[in-house]
Amino acid sequence: MATVRLLSDEDLSPEARAVFADIRATRKSDFVNNFWRALAHDPVTLKRTWESVKQVMGPGVLEPKVKEMLYIAVSIAHACPYCIHSHTANARAKGMSEEEYRELLAIVGMASETNRLVTALGVPIDEAYEVG
Amino acid sequence: MATVRLLSDEDLSPEARAVFADIRATRKSDFVNNFWRALAHDPVTLKRTWESVKQVMGPGVLEPKVKEMLYIAVSIAHACPYCIHSHTANARAKGMSEEEYRELLAIVGMASETNRLVTALGVPIDEAYEVG
Amino acid sequence: MATVRLLSDEDLSPEARAVFADIRATRKSDFVNNFWRALAHDPVTLKRTWESVKQVMGPGVLEPKVKEMLYIAVSIAHACPYCIHSHTANARAKGMSEEEYRELLAIVGMASETNRLVTALGVPIDEAYEVG
Amino acid sequence: MATVRLLSDEDLSPEARAVFADIRATRKSDFVNNFWRALAHDPVTLKRTWESVKQVMGPGVLEPKVKEMLYIAVSIAHACPYCIHSHTANARAKGMSEEEYRELLAIVGMASETNRLVTALGVPIDEAYEVG
Amino acid sequence: MATVRLLSDEDLSPEARAVFADIRATRKSDFVNNFWRALAHDPVTLKRTWESVKQVMGPGVLEPKVKEMLYIAVSIAHACPYCIHSHTANARAKGMSEEEYRELLAIVGMASETNRLVTALGVPIDEAYEVG
Amino acid sequence: MATVRLLSDEDLSPEARAVFADIRATRKSDFVNNFWRALAHDPVTLKRTWESVKQVMGPGVLEPKVKEMLYIAVSIAHACPYCIHSHTANARAKGMSEEEYRELLAIVGMASETNRLVTALGVPIDEAYEVG
Repeated sequence: MATVRLLSDEDLSPEARAVFADIRATRKSDFVNNFWRALAHDPVTLKRTWESVKQVMGPGVLEPKVKEMLYIAVSIAHACPYCIHSHTANARAKGMSEEEYRELLAIVGMASETNRLVTALGVPIDEAYEVG
Repeated sequence: MATVRLLSDEDLSPEARAVFADIRATRKSDFVNNFWRALAHDPVTLKRTWESVKQVMGPGVLEPKVKEMLYIAVSIAHACPYCIHSHTANARAKGMSEEEYRELLAIVGMASETNRLVTALGVPIDEAYEVG
Repeated sequence: MATVRLLSDEDLSPEARAVFADIRATRKSDFVNNFWRALAHDPVTLKRTWESVKQVMGPGVLEPKVKEMLYIAVSIAHACPYCIHSHTANARAKGMSEEEYRELLAIVGMASETNRLVTALGVPIDEAYEVG
Repeated sequence: MATVRLLSDEDLSPEARAVFADIRATRKSDFVNNFWRALAHDPVTLKRTWESVKQVMGPGVLEPKVKEMLYIAVSIAHACPYCIHSHTANARAKGMSEEEYRELLAIVGMASETNRLVTALGVPIDEAYEVG
Repeated sequence: MATVRLLSDEDLSPEARAVFADIRATRKSDFVNNFWRALAHDPVTLKRTWESVKQVMGPGVLEPKVKEMLYIAVSIAHACPYCIHSHTANARAKGMSEEEYRELLAIVGMASETNRLVTALGVPIDEAYEVG
Repeated sequence: MATVRLLSDEDLSPEARAVFADIRATRKSDFVNNFWRALAHDPVTLKRTWESVKQVMGPGVLEPKVKEMLYIAVSIAHACPYCIHSHTANARAKGMSEEEYRELLAIVGMASETNRLVTALGVPIDEAYEVG
């Protein structure tokens, strides 16, 4: 199910086609996943989103696999199964080991528990955590 | 504000006192933050939670600062200001650089945006992401 | 999957039957969607919910399509695929254009990103935003 | 409280200064709210976020006040008090009447209730809502 | 902070005044908490919400304190500090013991952890849980 | 779909096998649901989670069915269909009547509505709700 039809390569507008070409060139792979095929109905948002993702997930000081693991953590807390599946696959492709994946899941679970306990108790922020 | 009074060291039950001693010994610091002082009303949950956190956040294959960054990411998505402040302080104490922090925030923001776009569009999971 | 069986017209209690009749009369359509068929197990909540929805989504100062777009926005942030699908269909039926839908999605995505950045940074509310 | 110090105009890097100038020019106002002062520690994310917000919230087919109302709806569901306060102020400045605000709140409340009922019941999506 | 001014008894419209009178009569107390004072700007939503709350939280098969505990659980997961504080006070007033409160918090924390683990793993629903 | 393969009894490591044996003994049932079969890839998290769940959901001052109802409430607010289905089945098995289930759903719906209204309005916490 989807709220829009997924676009095949033949359905793309010229603007969307150019974005797909950049996705393929950047990732060095012909595969373009369904997210972009759904978003392609709006070439403006497609282009802005892709360029933002490319900037944010591109080379930086954090390892690529760590970036994907952070993406997974957020996606779990937002209850987005598609996002969890795609970024778990990405993280594995970028070298996340099973042991790292285990630690990621354990941390997400534990953080969820303490997040809600803190919220339930209305814990005031310690002065030690205040910034300037 | 809080839904319970924060307990000072003098208020602790013997069971809670033992947990506080282990928190101090494990962290090599006398400081015990407000979360534990609120949770100390229930020594059973205090002990179980501390031991779980100690196991999950203890030595492993992920760097301590990366573990804290994952904790921050989840805490942001759960809208827990206390948790964000405490784990941001922890991550900095464990070596997270300002550049790493910038990348963390950019990823959390970007993931939030694409999480909601995916959900809005009801994107079906690609076969390529299926496991076994 | 569901946690209750969906009720067909023949299964309805007299109280639920009366609510279904009002849904059909109000919408000028014979179609009653699955939400009401699941809720019909509890005629009290069925009636209260339908009457509240009828009041809130009925004629007012906001255009019907704008009301549906607000409903979609909330449903996305609550990660409710059923709600997103039904209200996207409703919004289209009430005149939402593809261009309006594109802007809606772009806003929801952008708001999600800045919401989480603001939360991550713990930004204090500007005095200018305070109300009397 | 914040996890970073808010930057005054004097603290800005040249790149951040240029973004602030564009914010002021676009909004035709000297006021720059705290969100941008917190984000200014990272000129890259500051610039990307501002340009995206400017594109998304700029002239389009939806009225400016409706765009702000959608922003408010999402911000409520994400539990972001800062975002709610700032976009409620924006919406009012762009012409949202008290009556429109009342309808917005009623819809957000009602959608939250039915979102959770639908989720609780695990209601399957009606065929009528499927897209091609 | 609030997005509206809280209304004192003198500020109320006749319709809002009647609702406040019913709140006081139902609760057998002169105290009307801030939520209703903020909502009173919209007498229609005030009346609908109060009557729904009165129906839902009124006498039934669940004990009053259990109803309040369910309210607290939801409020924690929605990150609403006001709601948590008010319903924790209500639950205590209706007889929730400290031991019951401890169990409530432990369950909310544990559910949060397993909810996110299940979501992370994309666990398929067992046939045994299917209805009808 | 899942991000890991579900483990059958034959696939289990000795550590996971011991946990499964304890699940069966504690529940006096041979059935082990999919959550544990997904989690079994990580015997450490499997063991810690099971022991925590056993402690938290075990005998206490709250009735077993009430504990399950609190679990359901949290699971709905976290948008976890698997969790909702499994704990609804558990609650029914532990004696939750249809009338109790109706009240649970009505409370969760109502709390969701007022939670978001309170958040939208930024209602300040009444002094009466403050704890010592």
